[in-house]
Amino acid sequence: MDWAFLDEEIVYDGSQLKSLWAFTVLGIKEDSIISFIGPCDVKTEHMIDLQDVVEGDVIYSPLMLHFIVEHFDEVSMRLTATRQRLLVNIAKEFLNVEREGNDLYYGGKKLSVSIATISPISAKIHLGINVESDEYASLSEMGFENVRELAIDVCRKYAYEIEDIEEDIRKTRPASSF
Amino acid sequence: MDWAFLDEEIVYDGSQLKSLWAFTVLGIKEDSIISFIGPCDVKTEHMIDLQDVVEGDVIYSPLMLHFIVEHFDEVSMRLTATRQRLLVNIAKEFLNVEREGNDLYYGGKKLSVSIATISPISAKIHLGINVESDEYASLSEMGFENVRELAIDVCRKYAYEIEDIEEDIRKTRPASSF
Amino acid sequence: MDWAFLDEEIVYDGSQLKSLWAFTVLGIKEDSIISFIGPCDVKTEHMIDLQDVVEGDVIYSPLMLHFIVEHFDEVSMRLTATRQRLLVNIAKEFLNVEREGNDLYYGGKKLSVSIATISPISAKIHLGINVESDEYASLSEMGFENVRELAIDVCRKYAYEIEDIEEDIRKTRPASSF
Amino acid sequence: MDWAFLDEEIVYDGSQLKSLWAFTVLGIKEDSIISFIGPCDVKTEHMIDLQDVVEGDVIYSPLMLHFIVEHFDEVSMRLTATRQRLLVNIAKEFLNVEREGNDLYYGGKKLSVSIATISPISAKIHLGINVESDEYASLSEMGFENVRELAIDVCRKYAYEIEDIEEDIRKTRPASSF
Amino acid sequence: MDWAFLDEEIVYDGSQLKSLWAFTVLGIKEDSIISFIGPCDVKTEHMIDLQDVVEGDVIYSPLMLHFIVEHFDEVSMRLTATRQRLLVNIAKEFLNVEREGNDLYYGGKKLSVSIATISPISAKIHLGINVESDEYASLSEMGFENVRELAIDVCRKYAYEIEDIEEDIRKTRPASSF
Amino acid sequence: MDWAFLDEEIVYDGSQLKSLWAFTVLGIKEDSIISFIGPCDVKTEHMIDLQDVVEGDVIYSPLMLHFIVEHFDEVSMRLTATRQRLLVNIAKEFLNVEREGNDLYYGGKKLSVSIATISPISAKIHLGINVESDEYASLSEMGFENVRELAIDVCRKYAYEIEDIEEDIRKTRPASSF
Repeated sequence: MDWAFLDEEIVYDGSQLKSLWAFTVLGIKEDSIISFIGPCDVKTEHMIDLQDVVEGDVIYSPLMLHFIVEHFDEVSMRLTATRQRLLVNIAKEFLNVEREGNDLYYGGKKLSVSIATISPISAKIHLGINVESDEYASLSEMGFENVRELAIDVCRKYAYEIEDIEEDIRKTRPASSF
Repeated sequence: MDWAFLDEEIVYDGSQLKSLWAFTVLGIKEDSIISFIGPCDVKTEHMIDLQDVVEGDVIYSPLMLHFIVEHFDEVSMRLTATRQRLLVNIAKEFLNVEREGNDLYYGGKKLSVSIATISPISAKIHLGINVESDEYASLSEMGFENVRELAIDVCRKYAYEIEDIEEDIRKTRPASSF
Repeated sequence: MDWAFLDEEIVYDGSQLKSLWAFTVLGIKEDSIISFIGPCDVKTEHMIDLQDVVEGDVIYSPLMLHFIVEHFDEVSMRLTATRQRLLVNIAKEFLNVEREGNDLYYGGKKLSVSIATISPISAKIHLGINVESDEYASLSEMGFENVRELAIDVCRKYAYEIEDIEEDIRKTRPASSF
Repeated sequence: MDWAFLDEEIVYDGSQLKSLWAFTVLGIKEDSIISFIGPCDVKTEHMIDLQDVVEGDVIYSPLMLHFIVEHFDEVSMRLTATRQRLLVNIAKEFLNVEREGNDLYYGGKKLSVSIATISPISAKIHLGINVESDEYASLSEMGFENVRELAIDVCRKYAYEIEDIEEDIRKTRPASSF
Repeated sequence: MDWAFLDEEIVYDGSQLKSLWAFTVLGIKEDSIISFIGPCDVKTEHMIDLQDVVEGDVIYSPLMLHFIVEHFDEVSMRLTATRQRLLVNIAKEFLNVEREGNDLYYGGKKLSVSIATISPISAKIHLGINVESDEYASLSEMGFENVRELAIDVCRKYAYEIEDIEEDIRKTRPASSF
Repeated sequence: MDWAFLDEEIVYDGSQLKSLWAFTVLGIKEDSIISFIGPCDVKTEHMIDLQDVVEGDVIYSPLMLHFIVEHFDEVSMRLTATRQRLLVNIAKEFLNVEREGNDLYYGGKKLSVSIATISPISAKIHLGINVESDEYASLSEMGFENVRELAIDVCRKYAYEIEDIEEDIRKTRPASSF
């Protein structure tokens, strides 16, 4: 599994959740987790959580640390949503904040947004953590400064967990049955 | 998803990892997480981690808190091994210990064993946490007394996470593609 | 599995076959079967049976009893088309009419339309039974008056069958092999 | 899909539910439904419904009409159990009896047994209908004489339904999504 | 599996890679391989290989022999891409040229284009072999004249291989495990 | 994908087709193709091709070049049997012999045996090519001396094809539909 931190600022507008984004941007032909920093401003047409659409939510942040995951190995909604929990949990542990479902909280305020979905050909996850925010919690408010380091830590840990799971399933016998 | 804590002591010998164990013991016809307390003494024939078999490991503990998970919804090794991480992580958070892969550590010593596998018809996970141990870390050593409460907390949280994921995937649009 | 009968009249125009319709209308985050009464007027762009499109068929009825099924548990065309047969059969038995494939017939005339399909995220089935019709058979012509009761009977029976199947597969051993 | 009625009497002892039985007996390399007449005496080791095993049920009948289905096209417990309902329903309609889940009833008495399961390589269904029985309902008691004809009718209809479904899924567009 | 050679000239513009093309053109409700001769001029909107899109490639040939494969039996990207290798290999053997991945070469020049992909409902493969070409290798340049015969040979061989594989998997026991 | 040529002679008795063989022997936790040279003497209990069992075939050769493939990425009979064709074809091309299904022929005589199957956890392929044989064709008879080189060539090429396919599916858009 490939990972990268992109130094340039990129606006996350939801289009990065399209299948094959990492290939178009970086030419990557592996499962991957890519991180970058930039504003978050998701257009309704790119909103994947239909609850947000129905409720007319605005998905906006002046500055976020973004993670874009793409898997081609097994395209299953259930697996992808489970991997999303794993990713959010990894971020939670590095930040030492609270997690509720796929959301991180700091001081009772929401620190992150996240979505996971599939197309016919791949599975995608987005996790965005506020770097700056007036309305919500943010790394800035937490006094957490090394955002780039966090990005790399989370990418590395997620890639490690996925690869570790792949090793687990290559040394495990099937269960028998009553 | 059903869950239960069984009050009677049960020796975990690996046979509980067989598909349909919860049905034979409790008549449960749902996906389930069942917990109980008892010794751990896994016969080689029931060892699922082939690494243990190859290395001649002994899987023994005088007293453990056991969790037996069974899913029929989607029988995938990859999904099951990912759910296993979720389960181990839930226990980690209630106990405030270290996690490395599927193992919990306290004071640098191993606190738990865990395995996940599938048969053609269902997916199974075992997590065992030492209550007593001479050789390894244990809840007893940690001064953690309310084992029954922990059992129920972990069962409830795991069942909640799984159900929450099921709700997530029922409000999420597919991704489009470049 | 959730089910509901909606009292308001809804025009079935094919858009109800989109994935997540039940969530947008009712906020349901479960597999579901929803029924309602209303005209049927499917726009070509929403026609799912390509044979209808190719043959330039008109899918129209002045008044129909509609069933909209959505499953997220296992997204398979084959499974969905098999469940469709089950649904059509349930309606057949309550109405005591003839079935040929996915169509119901009364007095040699077609009484219903039905289609089943999938998106990447869910499986959908539509069954529409004429309440009124000049051209085709209808419940009205059959003297069948309690349409609302029929709606609820079919919803309940279908939900029961699906749940019963889920119970079956949680008490069944795998087959062995020669 | 291949089908056959075997003229020789065969004792159904559960071994026919093994994967590849039709190949070993008839050399068939297709999905198939095979019927034959013979006693039913299932050894506990071949009992697939664990409920029967747990409850110590005896699966015995002096004479039954048996159907053995095997599918290799898509090995899914959920699909197989749904196809089983379809098969039982086909028999129900030819016999004009009652159906409850996978069981047929005549005059309030059980007329049939049925089970569906999978191995890693194929899906299997057994349906047995009493031809003679002291304890349960039977075709004999119903005055239903042409058992061979029934066998062929059910085989043909099941094979037709499966093939018809295969045609359905080859003319159906995917659903779009909200 | 059905196959056909269409005598009329058809321009391959990429739209033939849509799911259900064979049904719309020929009414075929089987898995199929269809061949025809015609120019190749793929519009960017129909380009499936994103590498071509990113690199601004032109997919053009004055005259090609085209093969359009569609499978509904198991919709898997991995399986489809593997079947594509099989198809390209079959063509390679009839032509006695070089193969590198999914491309055929004659005299060091590219002779063919090929792509494989899936929609939610089916798997599609296109293989196009230059009949005429100024820029690339072509059957004409090779002195290979009987294009129609080649078309039929490849279709027949591919259909045979697929059916032969289906027979293989209907006589094969599952593996056991250490 | 890992590959290796084992220098020690190993008798292929069919047990190498068990899932996790490469892990037990080499500790490999990747998908793999392993080759070695040794006699072939498959016990009936390890025969996977039921046709061999039914026909009482003897699977014996005094000396063969063996390839053992194991995949965990996607456990599908259809995919595995298709990959088997790919593997046999690779050997065919290095040897410049005839292929019929999964068998290689030289001078009208059979040169090889091959089988592909799955367990619940992995997919396995065996290809054995006679190095010596009284009854059948052999590399020795062909004057083909560098068996070790052939082993490495086939391993490398197969691993390359599989990885190349994985890259293909990570740059390919989904198909749209009529």
